[in-house]
Amino acid sequence: MHTETALERVPRWEIFEIALNGQRTGNPYADVSLVALFRYGEHVFEIEGFYDGDGCYRIRFMPGLEGAWSYSSRSSAPELDGISGGFICGPPKKDAHGVVRVARTFHFVYEDGRPYFPVGTTCYAWTHQGSFLEEQTLETLSRSPFNKIRMCIFPKHYDYNSNEPEFFPFEGTPQRGWDFTRFRPDFFRHLEKRIGELRALGIEADLILFHPYDRWGFSDMGAEADDRYVRYVVARLSAYRNVWWSLANEYDLPTSYGSRRRKTPEDWERFAAILVKWDPHGHLRSIHNCRELYDHGKPWITHCSIQRIDVYKTSEMTSQWREDYHKPVVIDECAYEGNIDLGWGNITASEMVRRTWEGVVRGGYVGHGETYLDPAEVLWWSKGGVLHGQSPERIGFMKRILEEGPVDGLSPISFGMESWDLPCGGVPGKYYLFYFGFNQPAFRKFHMPEGQKFTVDIIDTWNMELHRLPGTFTGQFRIELPGRQFMAVRILRESEA
Amino acid sequence: MHTETALERVPRWEIFEIALNGQRTGNPYADVSLVALFRYGEHVFEIEGFYDGDGCYRIRFMPGLEGAWSYSSRSSAPELDGISGGFICGPPKKDAHGVVRVARTFHFVYEDGRPYFPVGTTCYAWTHQGSFLEEQTLETLSRSPFNKIRMCIFPKHYDYNSNEPEFFPFEGTPQRGWDFTRFRPDFFRHLEKRIGELRALGIEADLILFHPYDRWGFSDMGAEADDRYVRYVVARLSAYRNVWWSLANEYDLPTSYGSRRRKTPEDWERFAAILVKWDPHGHLRSIHNCRELYDHGKPWITHCSIQRIDVYKTSEMTSQWREDYHKPVVIDECAYEGNIDLGWGNITASEMVRRTWEGVVRGGYVGHGETYLDPAEVLWWSKGGVLHGQSPERIGFMKRILEEGPVDGLSPISFGMESWDLPCGGVPGKYYLFYFGFNQPAFRKFHMPEGQKFTVDIIDTWNMELHRLPGTFTGQFRIELPGRQFMAVRILRESEA
Repeated sequence: MHTETALERVPRWEIFEIALNGQRTGNPYADVSLVALFRYGEHVFEIEGFYDGDGCYRIRFMPGLEGAWSYSSRSSAPELDGISGGFICGPPKKDAHGVVRVARTFHFVYEDGRPYFPVGTTCYAWTHQGSFLEEQTLETLSRSPFNKIRMCIFPKHYDYNSNEPEFFPFEGTPQRGWDFTRFRPDFFRHLEKRIGELRALGIEADLILFHPYDRWGFSDMGAEADDRYVRYVVARLSAYRNVWWSLANEYDLPTSYGSRRRKTPEDWERFAAILVKWDPHGHLRSIHNCRELYDHGKPWITHCSIQRIDVYKTSEMTSQWREDYHKPVVIDECAYEGNIDLGWGNITASEMVRRTWEGVVRGGYVGHGETYLDPAEVLWWSKGGVLHGQSPERIGFMKRILEEGPVDGLSPISFGMESWDLPCGGVPGKYYLFYFGFNQPAFRKFHMPEGQKFTVDIIDTWNMELHRLPGTFTGQFRIELPGRQFMAVRILRESEA
Repeated sequence: MHTETALERVPRWEIFEIALNGQRTGNPYADVSLVALFRYGEHVFEIEGFYDGDGCYRIRFMPGLEGAWSYSSRSSAPELDGISGGFICGPPKKDAHGVVRVARTFHFVYEDGRPYFPVGTTCYAWTHQGSFLEEQTLETLSRSPFNKIRMCIFPKHYDYNSNEPEFFPFEGTPQRGWDFTRFRPDFFRHLEKRIGELRALGIEADLILFHPYDRWGFSDMGAEADDRYVRYVVARLSAYRNVWWSLANEYDLPTSYGSRRRKTPEDWERFAAILVKWDPHGHLRSIHNCRELYDHGKPWITHCSIQRIDVYKTSEMTSQWREDYHKPVVIDECAYEGNIDLGWGNITASEMVRRTWEGVVRGGYVGHGETYLDPAEVLWWSKGGVLHGQSPERIGFMKRILEEGPVDGLSPISFGMESWDLPCGGVPGKYYLFYFGFNQPAFRKFHMPEGQKFTVDIIDTWNMELHRLPGTFTGQFRIELPGRQFMAVRILRESEA
């Protein structure tokens, strides 16, 4: 790779990897520094390499611009230092659209300009379940509407999560303890494989760096080990275009059950600084709460990643959070469809779908999860497997409505006092999506801008039916409705219909 | 009546009325002052009389203590002045329990100590609909669970409310206008008849003195006329034991459609002072909001009468309002079962019942209403008639659970963090009523005080079924549940079961 023969060709947004042989003595994870500078015209990206075991060092880079790139390495190990070369970045593969970025304050877009409407789900510990279940999860995902998945890097210890993982991230064993200075390449190769498979499915991997559901000690390693871990993860994974960084699931809980220690704001800000410094690809960054939102106004936070902070009212607060933070609002946990004992995991499918719509018409995005009791303790929300619920299909219907809608996404539209009981998202003058939620009106009056013609679609969000009314409508008009819950009305300017 | 022959006997909490002939000249409504002092041992009650037309003046008093009472009148009219006499107050009639009072800060009790759990409904303008409909309403109420009804004194102008009333409260006509100094006895006799009929049914009449849904001018008569009206109403009606005073429906709206004027806090406080001064029977007093709660901390307010201030979360705020005001929380309008266009009038029966339970297990009370479209525009919430919905029967089931429960009512019981998703009302150690609302758990773990035995009842609040589990339970235990919405669990100390 460091010879100067014919230049390798790498499609845009795929991974260019430099593999180097170097020292095996001492602790290469801790003792050897290695970076490469990647150059494209005036642009310079500094990328950290990582030790992958067996004397192999790697540096990974995801080129985001087509054309000629060059690189040169800097290392504390002479045999890794001063390596240089280049490659040609060519057109992207079909279905590769680049990194997802924030667009128009409240929305997302792939790097190639294609709209990205997050329709997420959660399988916290799916990569710790062994091949059979993990492949089943991928198969399920491939037939689902989901284009984002929240997942932990570390294994999980919690109700319905007592199985030991196949791989551990550090040298050691649960019995003897861990050497946090030595990573286990097999753990990370496995994780990378799964992230790559998600990428092939067009699914963003919202990677959770820390979480409190831990019996092994990974949640409370100390600042030095934490920082080393974050840098190692970034070095290994940031070249995957579908990676998002979620600093924590439930940052505000004690680090693990039985612990009273919590990570401090200083800890989180330090991790954020590592991400900002060492991820030159600029993946999305967030931090997810349990009870209290983190200050999503912090500049490093690209979007709000929110867990319900009220049992009864969640995605209805999207408008408020948009105003508070001026960032995309992603409610990753508004509660899950299921029937377990606790309130976060036993809402009905219709309530799951309702919350999704309530968020969407307010210009936000709401994530799915599923927690149906299972004799083998395989609950989707944590282990993946198969889906049992009725909400994913309806969320898929909602996603198709979004995808058919304005490419810039939905913005909340107010009709003054008339809006108090009927949220609307869209583009003023062109596209209006009203959602009635749990209300069951038999009719509704609408007031559209005068002098324009509109088509009206009656949408049954639960039965997944869309019915276009004959003719066009203008000004003030009354629309008959079926007196059922979960209806929406879409009103389009005739030229947009 | 003013002779001193054999003393009349009046049952406790019925009406003793003095009828006097006096001047018809001038304007007896405005020109003549008339009060009577009623004495019972050291107790003195000053009661205002009123002119009832045709030269007839009346003074009404509801004796609350058994034994000998005497009275004497004071009047600006010589022929009405210095009238004295007495009567004997005897035992109450069967089913007469006296005035409802606040008890134990957050609850109500009849004057004889019998618990009163308000289970209210709303028929704002039912006394303005003519005999047929009014009698149908009474018939419906007699078969309903409701023991309180919110109703306006004045007629109502609003959607589905365009019919002209049979009676008007003042001399005049809608065409020629009104003489606010002259009341119409036929209007008030009709109203009294209906209040008396409610009393016979054991239903409290939550009388609304002012409201903004007006096309006749009664909502904006000016301070002097307003005050005279309030005094006249109090003089005529306060001897009905089942009267409650609600100063306003939606005090914070403009006085009527198209008006920009609002009554001011000074207006409301002045009306309250009239009630406090001239109602010696101490009927309950409240003031109902549209958007913003009145300051329910005001000492004259006996209980909170609340309209939903959030579309999604209403009776779940009972705990907060209890803490804020340390008064009973009565959510008179949390939205109505129905299918009209607006969000306050198109929730499902199950949502109506859910809101009722959410309030009750938090130690509050939630009112019913019904707004199903009707070709004749007879919607229960305003005109009465018959009930079409499915919630009243379920509210009746809830009422029976309450009546079987602690006589002192339910207080919220916290189980610390375990309470976040499962509100509980009851009496610690003795009685626990848990409500799962829209959640659908397949089981739940409970932690009861150690060393005591408890029985467990599974309650399906929608299907109105109560199933007692065999045996007793102690300490920590797990209860299987059907994985449906709207379930409750009642746990009773064995000795209470």
